[in-house]
Amino acid sequence: MKKYVAECIGTATLVVLGCGTAMLVGCDAASGSGYLLTALAFGLTIVAMAYSIGNISGCHINPAVSLGVLLTGGMEIKEFICYVISQCVGALAGAGILALIFGTGGVEDKTGGFGSNGLAGVNGSPIAGLIVEIVLTFIFVIAILGVTSKKANHGSFGGLVIGLTLVVVHILGIGLTGTSVNPARSFGPALVAAFTGNTAPIAALWVFIVGPLVGAALAACVYKALED
Amino acid sequence: MKKYVAECIGTATLVVLGCGTAMLVGCDAASGSGYLLTALAFGLTIVAMAYSIGNISGCHINPAVSLGVLLTGGMEIKEFICYVISQCVGALAGAGILALIFGTGGVEDKTGGFGSNGLAGVNGSPIAGLIVEIVLTFIFVIAILGVTSKKANHGSFGGLVIGLTLVVVHILGIGLTGTSVNPARSFGPALVAAFTGNTAPIAALWVFIVGPLVGAALAACVYKALED
Amino acid sequence: MKKYVAECIGTATLVVLGCGTAMLVGCDAASGSGYLLTALAFGLTIVAMAYSIGNISGCHINPAVSLGVLLTGGMEIKEFICYVISQCVGALAGAGILALIFGTGGVEDKTGGFGSNGLAGVNGSPIAGLIVEIVLTFIFVIAILGVTSKKANHGSFGGLVIGLTLVVVHILGIGLTGTSVNPARSFGPALVAAFTGNTAPIAALWVFIVGPLVGAALAACVYKALED
Amino acid sequence: MKKYVAECIGTATLVVLGCGTAMLVGCDAASGSGYLLTALAFGLTIVAMAYSIGNISGCHINPAVSLGVLLTGGMEIKEFICYVISQCVGALAGAGILALIFGTGGVEDKTGGFGSNGLAGVNGSPIAGLIVEIVLTFIFVIAILGVTSKKANHGSFGGLVIGLTLVVVHILGIGLTGTSVNPARSFGPALVAAFTGNTAPIAALWVFIVGPLVGAALAACVYKALED
Repeated sequence: MKKYVAECIGTATLVVLGCGTAMLVGCDAASGSGYLLTALAFGLTIVAMAYSIGNISGCHINPAVSLGVLLTGGMEIKEFICYVISQCVGALAGAGILALIFGTGGVEDKTGGFGSNGLAGVNGSPIAGLIVEIVLTFIFVIAILGVTSKKANHGSFGGLVIGLTLVVVHILGIGLTGTSVNPARSFGPALVAAFTGNTAPIAALWVFIVGPLVGAALAACVYKALED
Repeated sequence: MKKYVAECIGTATLVVLGCGTAMLVGCDAASGSGYLLTALAFGLTIVAMAYSIGNISGCHINPAVSLGVLLTGGMEIKEFICYVISQCVGALAGAGILALIFGTGGVEDKTGGFGSNGLAGVNGSPIAGLIVEIVLTFIFVIAILGVTSKKANHGSFGGLVIGLTLVVVHILGIGLTGTSVNPARSFGPALVAAFTGNTAPIAALWVFIVGPLVGAALAACVYKALED
Repeated sequence: MKKYVAECIGTATLVVLGCGTAMLVGCDAASGSGYLLTALAFGLTIVAMAYSIGNISGCHINPAVSLGVLLTGGMEIKEFICYVISQCVGALAGAGILALIFGTGGVEDKTGGFGSNGLAGVNGSPIAGLIVEIVLTFIFVIAILGVTSKKANHGSFGGLVIGLTLVVVHILGIGLTGTSVNPARSFGPALVAAFTGNTAPIAALWVFIVGPLVGAALAACVYKALED
Repeated sequence: MKKYVAECIGTATLVVLGCGTAMLVGCDAASGSGYLLTALAFGLTIVAMAYSIGNISGCHINPAVSLGVLLTGGMEIKEFICYVISQCVGALAGAGILALIFGTGGVEDKTGGFGSNGLAGVNGSPIAGLIVEIVLTFIFVIAILGVTSKKANHGSFGGLVIGLTLVVVHILGIGLTGTSVNPARSFGPALVAAFTGNTAPIAALWVFIVGPLVGAALAACVYKALED
């Protein structure tokens, strides 16, 4: 049970710090440092959570990561389902906390949709969005499987390396899809945005569920084949 | 006694580098990189101090962190009080050094208040300010308790992870409250600002004492419950 | 065989994330944070790959690095040749993935040449370009040989240190040559750019083959002489 | 002898990457990311050199650091003198390489003085300059002594922590004095600038010799007193 609470807290934190930063500082690469701040916010939150929440649950805080772990034999199907539910509940809670902070403080949401993902950066093309999410999640999950491999024995480096990988994956992806690579992170903000009247994110949500899951599955197959 | 001197030096350094950077480069996320520089200044100072001052005192340099350590059984109440006093003295000394540098060099203070915390980013709402500080300190302290947990055995990773966590906590918080998560860091600059005629920071100071202490207490309870 | 697949995937990832970021956000240091984002993209990709792909092949993903390893006795000539071929195939595949993403999504390539290297920053001077690439590759390869030295025993720090070194090497080099220090990374984008009608990168390609290889050879000689 | 060659190469690299970045991208915090890029260039160069050059000489590449090591009993006076000479020769060589690159490539030096230090940021006040350099070097050297302390046993974390400390020290200092904390780094560019007709840096050089040496000596005394 503690594992599921940990996953819930960790995913909520990811949404609060990552999506919250996007909402606050904006994500325009052409001016200011909002784009970089958002990439760092997502990645460094993983660093923060990996060494705390991670002590209890392994800090997946992402259904795509849990799928990669499942497919490489690191968890069972029942546990996987409970992890995914906890992550989605956490993401929703995180988006709720953001609604509370931005609402109470009267702060403008510069993304207009609680930092949710979308296809504006690829001119509305779901094909382009899927390719981006598959490629980025493939890279992210292969890094996770590699650095946490028992054979490779990288010890406590995991959280730092995974966090910095999420930074770089965001650096390319923010301008294209906003970077999901994480269905739960897309789900929470999209649902809360829908409640406030912006239904575009929830309409595009399937891209950010299918893409990351396909990318993670590919990464699991490839890494397993390479390491064995 | 050496512990208290160490805490004093460490907190002074945090104020000099963190608040000093805010004063020098400004914190506007919409242009330039001052916002990011300030976040990095606070976080990387923790890295610098954790592996030096930390060898002597553990490098709390923050009453909220000391409260978290106290509540999880890592220190005694008498030691806690001495730590907090040392931290407040250090923060005051740090703000004094900044007054000396900026005064002697005739350098403009772009924050107008020695980098102190305030509620301008949340339109003056103390409720929003409290929520922000509670949430951010909760995240910060849970990361600290996790990475320094003896059960988890993350060795020398602590200082690096805690520093990067402070970076991300600032990335979201600077635009809202300026990010305190540290009553001593708020106290020193607010007091020196009051001496120079700007009393707004000292009027809002209670938010940056109550918020971080509540957040740290919550984090201690939650982390203890999860780990046990 | 797995080693070569790993090198191919790793080099493709470097081109996708590194060159892709340059194409998306641009590299003008005078405005925005595109310059820094590009430097971080290249460096943090090395971090991501070193702890995953690196478990299988050592993560050279760069012919100049493989040359340094060859000259210090870390691999044989036949393996070296296969590594270089895999790296070039990977770089080409990476540039192809970028063509697919940017084409399908209708995204503007701000570099106009798939993030390929060139001499515009040094006013077309191949001599200046060669000096820059020799100096930067010398620094990069000496850091690699040092941190991976068995005598020095830096354990799992290698990937992180090498990645951060690639960041700093890009910080200086982007404005001069775009920073190659890696003939494969220059080859892939230059070839794909030529197919789309921009032949300038392929005309300058020799600079980014000769420079990095000379720099790496110098670094191998110097580091070996210093360490023995 | 190898130690001295190593110190020479390391200091040359620091000047090439650190001062070169300042020359290329500029250091204005109000626009763009040049200020941050310069801070990262200096700090990440330390990371790169610590794990390579550091295997041979300990990677002081800074007379103030060598003074700190001398005063805490880590080296002898004769070795100290040879280190300082090697560092100054290296810094001069680094500035020479920059003159070659920028000259051959026809690249504008945005600092107008090979990235040398000065008092413009503190309105010409040598007192303010001295205070800044003493405070920043004190922080830098106390971090170095702490993380490399045999008692504390932080293993291979040293280079990373010292590099990140140099980043934060630059983040505050660039806008004030350009940040020296290193007499050799100030000496090389100042001398080369004087040869090209700009004698202001060499006139202010004493500040960047006295300040760092005083700061390092204070740090050695304080850290020794705290740790014993």
